[in-house]
Amino acid sequence: MTASHDASATAPGTSGWAGVVAATPLAEGEFSVHLDGGWSVGGGINGGFQMALVGQALAQMVPGKPHPLTFSTHFLSAGTAGPGTVRARVVRDGGSIATVAAELVQDDQVRVTVLASYTDLGALPTDVATTATPPQIAPREQCVSNSFAPPELRAIAPLMDRFEMLFDPACIGWAVGEPSGRGELTAWFRVQPDGVVDPVQLLLAVDALPPVTFDLGRPGWAPTLELTAHVRAVPADGWLVLRQATRNVAGGMFEEDCEVWDSAGRLVAQSRQLARMPRAR
Amino acid sequence: MTASHDASATAPGTSGWAGVVAATPLAEGEFSVHLDGGWSVGGGINGGFQMALVGQALAQMVPGKPHPLTFSTHFLSAGTAGPGTVRARVVRDGGSIATVAAELVQDDQVRVTVLASYTDLGALPTDVATTATPPQIAPREQCVSNSFAPPELRAIAPLMDRFEMLFDPACIGWAVGEPSGRGELTAWFRVQPDGVVDPVQLLLAVDALPPVTFDLGRPGWAPTLELTAHVRAVPADGWLVLRQATRNVAGGMFEEDCEVWDSAGRLVAQSRQLARMPRAR
Repeated sequence: MTASHDASATAPGTSGWAGVVAATPLAEGEFSVHLDGGWSVGGGINGGFQMALVGQALAQMVPGKPHPLTFSTHFLSAGTAGPGTVRARVVRDGGSIATVAAELVQDDQVRVTVLASYTDLGALPTDVATTATPPQIAPREQCVSNSFAPPELRAIAPLMDRFEMLFDPACIGWAVGEPSGRGELTAWFRVQPDGVVDPVQLLLAVDALPPVTFDLGRPGWAPTLELTAHVRAVPADGWLVLRQATRNVAGGMFEEDCEVWDSAGRLVAQSRQLARMPRAR
Repeated sequence: MTASHDASATAPGTSGWAGVVAATPLAEGEFSVHLDGGWSVGGGINGGFQMALVGQALAQMVPGKPHPLTFSTHFLSAGTAGPGTVRARVVRDGGSIATVAAELVQDDQVRVTVLASYTDLGALPTDVATTATPPQIAPREQCVSNSFAPPELRAIAPLMDRFEMLFDPACIGWAVGEPSGRGELTAWFRVQPDGVVDPVQLLLAVDALPPVTFDLGRPGWAPTLELTAHVRAVPADGWLVLRQATRNVAGGMFEEDCEVWDSAGRLVAQSRQLARMPRAR
């Protein structure tokens, strides 16, 4: 990868990921954020990036509960490059989990509205009894990097320059007009060259892959109606593996399940979104 | 089943399911509902039933959009038998989908808070291209009816008398101390003897089975933190099939995915919840 994915170039004040998603307190429950145009795709700002902006603001709302645990987002209008305001409130703070609500607003238009719970993930019991198995994915050196995306794709998806994404060869056929038809995408993913990950970054990760409908032979933008993510652990630093799949295409919509696995082989986030099918060409 | 599951007994005014979940408008965006004690389980009112109460109120908020499409609920405090108030507002109404928010309140305590989208499911395109396959389940006459539940179970789960639930023999071992350990439950389900189903009833259906942790050898109440359901089609009348599974037990919590299939063999609802593990005995 080249320096083109170095997000620090656009982050005033602080560097890297933390700077890009910085949420500056303006007043009680009000934060200023910046919707960096570098994170646009298909004419709007990426939904996962907007979730991360809200997530970073909410992380400051409840002392001692800095991490998203559940995060439900409805997407109401397309975010545009420029400033935005997060308005947040604590619905309930009791015990080890707080429930919070927020809206991301630009020019009096609500972009996304969020209902979430926050906790201290580091304080959870450490037991794991999972039957989920990590996705099968080829070694990184055999994968297809997003840095090889053709210029016309990069033009409509500038966010492709904001991170490293290495697609498993078994699910990249759509890039050459040969989708597998299985409705699956698997890739290595890294936002920062040093591989530092935090729980809020997982809100970006669950919506970073192209729509899984690419693998069904239906390329194009697939607007998300609703996305709920569960963050299940503080991720270990290093490369993440993303796996996305759909099973039920019906009524002009599809569900898209995403799993995020960290470099320690742990399932650190699970999400499901409901999105509209891309228009047939 | 006996008449004991005939919900009409507790519904003033109208009969059956519609009466039980009736939401009576009090003022703009305010509805009176009744948390029928017959729907309690483990010391509180069943979460799915509370979702249905809110769902029925929200169905009256936006003309022409009577059906839940996505429905995200956070559970804040245990609902108790008696009256409640649903306070609702339209976040955005545009195009074919409206976004709505609501709280269910009792004695100034918020029980559940909801962010949902509503639409006219009957107006969606009729195309279906699903790779999801209906759960394998034994014929009803070979299944184990909830009417055979022992008195001690019925005492802590009165809602078991509110519907018919016929468990697949392959996943009922927990009832005799022999859980399969797979983390799966499958059952036939019917609320009304005439099998009439509506989209709001699916909000009940996705939370009607016992916690899937029963099949992991961890019986007991598993409080839901968050549940998001997607209603994908107007269900056909008749028996529903419910399938529930978990894969990731970690940090003292587990995700529980539920599918609801209608009598026409269609996947009509998909949900995921995050719940706390039952306390070890």
